[in-house]
Amino acid sequence: QGCDGDDPVANDSLSANNIKVFGYIQPQYDYNFTDGNENTFRFKRARIGVRGNIKDDFSYYFMLEASPFIGSSGDAYLMDAFITYSKYNWARASVGSFKQPFSLDVSTPCNALTTIDRSIVADQLVAPQRDFGIMLLGGNKYTKFNYAIALMNGRGLRVKDDNTKKDIIGRLTYKITNFLTVGGSFRYGYPIPNNDDDSRTSYGGEFLLKWDEFKLQGEYIYDEGAYFSGAAGGCGVTPVALAEKRDGAYIMASYNINEKFQPVFKYEYFDPDIDLKDNIGYIERMTVGANYFHNEKIRFQLNYQANIQTVVNVDDDALIGQLQIKF
Amino acid sequence: QGCDGDDPVANDSLSANNIKVFGYIQPQYDYNFTDGNENTFRFKRARIGVRGNIKDDFSYYFMLEASPFIGSSGDAYLMDAFITYSKYNWARASVGSFKQPFSLDVSTPCNALTTIDRSIVADQLVAPQRDFGIMLLGGNKYTKFNYAIALMNGRGLRVKDDNTKKDIIGRLTYKITNFLTVGGSFRYGYPIPNNDDDSRTSYGGEFLLKWDEFKLQGEYIYDEGAYFSGAAGGCGVTPVALAEKRDGAYIMASYNINEKFQPVFKYEYFDPDIDLKDNIGYIERMTVGANYFHNEKIRFQLNYQANIQTVVNVDDDALIGQLQIKF
Amino acid sequence: QGCDGDDPVANDSLSANNIKVFGYIQPQYDYNFTDGNENTFRFKRARIGVRGNIKDDFSYYFMLEASPFIGSSGDAYLMDAFITYSKYNWARASVGSFKQPFSLDVSTPCNALTTIDRSIVADQLVAPQRDFGIMLLGGNKYTKFNYAIALMNGRGLRVKDDNTKKDIIGRLTYKITNFLTVGGSFRYGYPIPNNDDDSRTSYGGEFLLKWDEFKLQGEYIYDEGAYFSGAAGGCGVTPVALAEKRDGAYIMASYNINEKFQPVFKYEYFDPDIDLKDNIGYIERMTVGANYFHNEKIRFQLNYQANIQTVVNVDDDALIGQLQIKF
Repeated sequence: QGCDGDDPVANDSLSANNIKVFGYIQPQYDYNFTDGNENTFRFKRARIGVRGNIKDDFSYYFMLEASPFIGSSGDAYLMDAFITYSKYNWARASVGSFKQPFSLDVSTPCNALTTIDRSIVADQLVAPQRDFGIMLLGGNKYTKFNYAIALMNGRGLRVKDDNTKKDIIGRLTYKITNFLTVGGSFRYGYPIPNNDDDSRTSYGGEFLLKWDEFKLQGEYIYDEGAYFSGAAGGCGVTPVALAEKRDGAYIMASYNINEKFQPVFKYEYFDPDIDLKDNIGYIERMTVGANYFHNEKIRFQLNYQANIQTVVNVDDDALIGQLQIKF
Repeated sequence: QGCDGDDPVANDSLSANNIKVFGYIQPQYDYNFTDGNENTFRFKRARIGVRGNIKDDFSYYFMLEASPFIGSSGDAYLMDAFITYSKYNWARASVGSFKQPFSLDVSTPCNALTTIDRSIVADQLVAPQRDFGIMLLGGNKYTKFNYAIALMNGRGLRVKDDNTKKDIIGRLTYKITNFLTVGGSFRYGYPIPNNDDDSRTSYGGEFLLKWDEFKLQGEYIYDEGAYFSGAAGGCGVTPVALAEKRDGAYIMASYNINEKFQPVFKYEYFDPDIDLKDNIGYIERMTVGANYFHNEKIRFQLNYQANIQTVVNVDDDALIGQLQIKF
Repeated sequence: QGCDGDDPVANDSLSANNIKVFGYIQPQYDYNFTDGNENTFRFKRARIGVRGNIKDDFSYYFMLEASPFIGSSGDAYLMDAFITYSKYNWARASVGSFKQPFSLDVSTPCNALTTIDRSIVADQLVAPQRDFGIMLLGGNKYTKFNYAIALMNGRGLRVKDDNTKKDIIGRLTYKITNFLTVGGSFRYGYPIPNNDDDSRTSYGGEFLLKWDEFKLQGEYIYDEGAYFSGAAGGCGVTPVALAEKRDGAYIMASYNINEKFQPVFKYEYFDPDIDLKDNIGYIERMTVGANYFHNEKIRFQLNYQANIQTVVNVDDDALIGQLQIKF
């Protein structure tokens, strides 16, 4: 009748099954300093899912994105869903849909970002950010060395791959000292549907410095070759047109004044066409913000985004406030 | 990898997290006494979500609507999702998506309506019924006075606001005696996308009388000015065209014969154009029905809806049966 | 505010409510031996839901399908949702959306199929596989006799019925001996929207033989009359064009070498037009596969599908690997 069998339901099945229901919501208010000062209440993300362990070193992760402003239709859809085999710490394996292992910014959980938005370069060039595939991972937060390498469709969620080539994406990080970690990412793939000829190559470099309550992190991403504008980038971001070569970088500093209050400053740039001087698509952004952690479940973020166009000035600064609750 | 961190899953995480998984389904059978006697099995609502408390007076609510007959696409989507801070009973604050605080009928939980459908006037004029925004609330079921006032986009779910004005909506109720409560609602907003000029003003008046096992409630809603037909009204209702001024009212009586059986009668009218005599859109409806409460989780409702057109008669009466289970 | 009342959340509400959160995911890799060798990582199914018992013999079942490759849009949607009253084992009643009670193959839970895909005939002719309606059931796995008879819309999920006729579908099985069960199914309905004249009639016969660790099952389905290609068939299968009469059958043998390893062989054919000789739509398929049960929650399936066209040969064999985890 239903898609499962008709077994009786045990009273204590939930605890026995070891399912954790989890998620978070991020209601947000955007005020845009555009001509007309558009402003809106909205959601950034609204996610719910389950995760758990299965005996003999398997685990699963099943997450729906319900925010109407991410994805193509406004409805809830399957975002991350994967099965992981973790018997060997240096060769854990995952299969399903998950984020591409490229860049520190992309790898940071969406509920633990220091500013409300990811860097423009990560959202525009690490696209699709999520994809179907398999991944090998090694290391954890206690090891000096960490790596992840994935074989993925290269087309993103909601579609089957329709070329015969797969993309290969990888990232490795190394903790040089207790306070400094450096890392690099690469991707080689065939992004265009039904096309086995036009390839894309991307590189990324990153560092993360933690000194007492001070944190400084930065990344540079270079990307060249074919791309497909239909592959969704970061969470709800509109993809821009790219030329043959493009790059971008950011540097972000934050300081924990106390356990609740953390100011943050980020400078970033994104260039969709390296070869063109005075490109009107070139953008610099400074983000000034503050995070208030009411407790480990509740966070309030306030960001001012100053967008700087070097060729033709546009009024597009924004003030964004976001409340986040995790469950 | 996933959108959350990779923490190990604790065995007792569910109880520790204090998450309540909840929802209800309403399978329904409609028999229409139209020319041809169309009839169908369907769902009215099918909702699932989580809610819970977070320490220090925060709570959250996250609900998906999965009925294919509500919303624009037939898929599951985010309906109500909000974070509430309830330290002060007279100034609780919510942010997220939720129902507009307008009218007793709209404010009644969808699983506790005395007839299967809300009143036509509430479904047609309190549109969008759900929206993004912030709300201040005061009082509870023990206090004489209750109020709610909200600042909302005015465009409804699934879209960002694209004008710079927000809507203001409010409702207050006062318990005059133990058996009589009266209340009023208002809304002032700018319903048309990309339009900061054309406003809409709405008023509502209500009373609720409970005498022993007898309950009588009534409402009148008046609405004038601009409107936008793309803003979804009540749960799955098709919006009709409105003129400059429109109104409607209902009165509903029910009696608890015993703890299981409750007959109900409702008379209502809705006028989409007050200024026009002999308007073919003017409608009166009488609903005769009965509710059977098998227990507190299971309810069966049977309604006969007699629709009365005063200008041109149309065969459109309906017999509707609905079973509801809450979990 | 939300669609439920504002009751406080009890700490132990989950166990008290007796809700079981359950589901499964099936990440899959398809390699097609077509011209070009298309291959893709994808999901077959990704389902999550809740089920539980309510006192006085009621139970509920609420399941979302989140796989982007089933359903019309790629978003999560309501698949099975029904309420069951099971006081009398020989007259249990369900109302809501569920699978049509037709054929052993369709009735087998989607996470317990012996091959990755159902038989072509079941996916093509038992369409819609899921529908809204009511069903009467009798018997269980301990009884010799089992039956199910349903009255359903006949249009499938996501739509209301728009003709006045309902479909009637039924299946009964009888356990002749401990190791042999035989059964039959029928369906009579009006599949075309807005059409009360053109009917469809279907019959099915089945047997299931279990001898020690050996299992042999087979089915034949005959179907004639009107059909509607817009009614979704099996999980994500593309419906083919049908002539006035069509049929198909399969026979499948499997053997449990030990508790973990089970090879399987299936032969099947499907004929979309019985009256036409040398029909290019006629297809035979041989599936050779193996199932590996890591434990009761985790299964790996590997299938080779050899498709045999008797008229014009086409390169369309496929190698499919699927990992399944249940929670």
